[in-house]
Amino acid sequence: MKRAGKQTLIFQNPPAILSSSAVVGPKEGEGPLKKTFDLVMKDTLCGEKSWEKAECKILQEAVKIALNKVDLKPEQVDFLLAGDLLNQTISANYAARQLAIPFLGLYGACSTMIESMILGSVLVDGGYADTVVAAASSHHDTAERQYRFPSELGVQRPLTAQWTVTGAGACLIAKGSGGPRITSATIGKVIDLGIKDQNDMGSAMAPAAVDTITQHFQDTGHSMDDFDLIITGDLASLGKALAQQLLERQGYLPGDKYSDCGILIFDPTQDTHAGGSGCACSAVVTCGYLMQNIRSGRYKRMMVIGTGALLSPVSLLQGESIPGIAHGIVIENENGYRDQKEM
Amino acid sequence: MKRAGKQTLIFQNPPAILSSSAVVGPKEGEGPLKKTFDLVMKDTLCGEKSWEKAECKILQEAVKIALNKVDLKPEQVDFLLAGDLLNQTISANYAARQLAIPFLGLYGACSTMIESMILGSVLVDGGYADTVVAAASSHHDTAERQYRFPSELGVQRPLTAQWTVTGAGACLIAKGSGGPRITSATIGKVIDLGIKDQNDMGSAMAPAAVDTITQHFQDTGHSMDDFDLIITGDLASLGKALAQQLLERQGYLPGDKYSDCGILIFDPTQDTHAGGSGCACSAVVTCGYLMQNIRSGRYKRMMVIGTGALLSPVSLLQGESIPGIAHGIVIENENGYRDQKEM
Repeated sequence: MKRAGKQTLIFQNPPAILSSSAVVGPKEGEGPLKKTFDLVMKDTLCGEKSWEKAECKILQEAVKIALNKVDLKPEQVDFLLAGDLLNQTISANYAARQLAIPFLGLYGACSTMIESMILGSVLVDGGYADTVVAAASSHHDTAERQYRFPSELGVQRPLTAQWTVTGAGACLIAKGSGGPRITSATIGKVIDLGIKDQNDMGSAMAPAAVDTITQHFQDTGHSMDDFDLIITGDLASLGKALAQQLLERQGYLPGDKYSDCGILIFDPTQDTHAGGSGCACSAVVTCGYLMQNIRSGRYKRMMVIGTGALLSPVSLLQGESIPGIAHGIVIENENGYRDQKEM
Repeated sequence: MKRAGKQTLIFQNPPAILSSSAVVGPKEGEGPLKKTFDLVMKDTLCGEKSWEKAECKILQEAVKIALNKVDLKPEQVDFLLAGDLLNQTISANYAARQLAIPFLGLYGACSTMIESMILGSVLVDGGYADTVVAAASSHHDTAERQYRFPSELGVQRPLTAQWTVTGAGACLIAKGSGGPRITSATIGKVIDLGIKDQNDMGSAMAPAAVDTITQHFQDTGHSMDDFDLIITGDLASLGKALAQQLLERQGYLPGDKYSDCGILIFDPTQDTHAGGSGCACSAVVTCGYLMQNIRSGRYKRMMVIGTGALLSPVSLLQGESIPGIAHGIVIENENGYRDQKEM
């Protein structure tokens, strides 16, 4: 059976994550996870003439580093699945041009990394591809000027706001063994409880995250007990607290098994307010910190839930609220995953 | 074997297109294909307060009509794969909120309809879904003001420009029989020959279209002779002529077997200059006219090549050229498809 319940895909030949990489900007490189990144850029322009070009470069670097780790060249990769936050996802498009890997562009806002890992796993598990790279990027300054105000204006940010992570994550998903396994995935619905404050995206996305987590439990019969870690993408402090409440209201007691990439990536002293956000938030934490911990065996089975706020500045100006989406993926330690399945 | 050559997926259990629908604006409803559309909107606002909201409504209508034809409700569909041209693909996001079908957002510019049909076919053929809706939309006025100038300004358009189609196409892809079959698909690379004129997108996309068509031939051993029709998404008159030249230079003589949705959808008297464009161009021609002709048996096997220009206004302002991408899908008449495979 390749689907459980309504929304969960079960991979019969769980694809392996052969390698992964996380490239970040200088601020992220000073944060608590600094030792888990493969490359920290010296500045936010990365030698380019614009932040947009810098973001595209970071994304390419992340893909190249992931491939270098296993001595693969871009032309040996079957497909690239990637996306980002910029209008018309230009970081991914231009990176795909440079890498010359057959390309499928995705847009799931900050859930894009997990969306690309899910579809990449489908292509590999289903036998359509041997090797797929899943990747996503974001950049603080490109996001600020596109969604809010140009950084140069120095507009004050409310304490509910999150800091878009500058960085990119990439992982090489392939058939066979040689790394953590992607064993199942839950594709989310768009959920909208009516929040209109674009400075509180975490709260807007929390209901979607909880819907996907609980749907995964319903579909598979699993519970919190079956996971060492359940981690959302970028709900940050407000959204995480709300998600926790919503989970508890439904009878799930996540306790300290539940965490959020947007909280892990920055230190409260870094003045990012509620925490991190952006496609790169879940991408670099998953491809760096989380992958290291699942490889080491600290986590035997975890669920990473990419969370996306599906607004645009235009939709907000036209009076719309902010819908959220969340896609979940279950990653298991390579040695542990068969035993875990018996549970 | 589920993949042939480098870039072509072969569907072992070719998914059926159980139903499809095409909804268009008034201008398209006056064009040569008017009898092939399911619904022609009376005006471009469709009773909404903005063109963006109208586009979202058109997309929802297209999905509902496709489902109504086979007496299905949105909650009976496993997954929705959709995208559009607007920043952050808001038409698809808000439509997915209203339809409440688990959702994967895509961005492939005007290739999005074919990208969604490919990934939808993978999910169904691979056994991960029983029913998937693939859909895409565009709207002339939302595209004009986002990419070029607000329609109200009345800026003169050069003769190389194309007219973004107002409309949406949707098709229901399912396992089993009951409609035309999707038998294979070729995922394209990003190709960029350096064109920077955003008023000549057809020429920018033509090299990608030809790359995907010839890759499909290389991967499968098929040739022009194996198809009744090879049709590109929205190269329009300039791009089509260029694609034809490039194909001939490689020894392929497409003759009158090769056509383009952007040429079919408007009449030269409609003052659209080079022809139609936008996600909806290939979407409504495929889901309307082409599907009728493949159902009737006029075409036994065709390849539809969705073509996308992967620029943004920002990337052009920063001096970038316009990269193109093209994804191809092979659709066969239900009764003919097994014989065709023997070829």
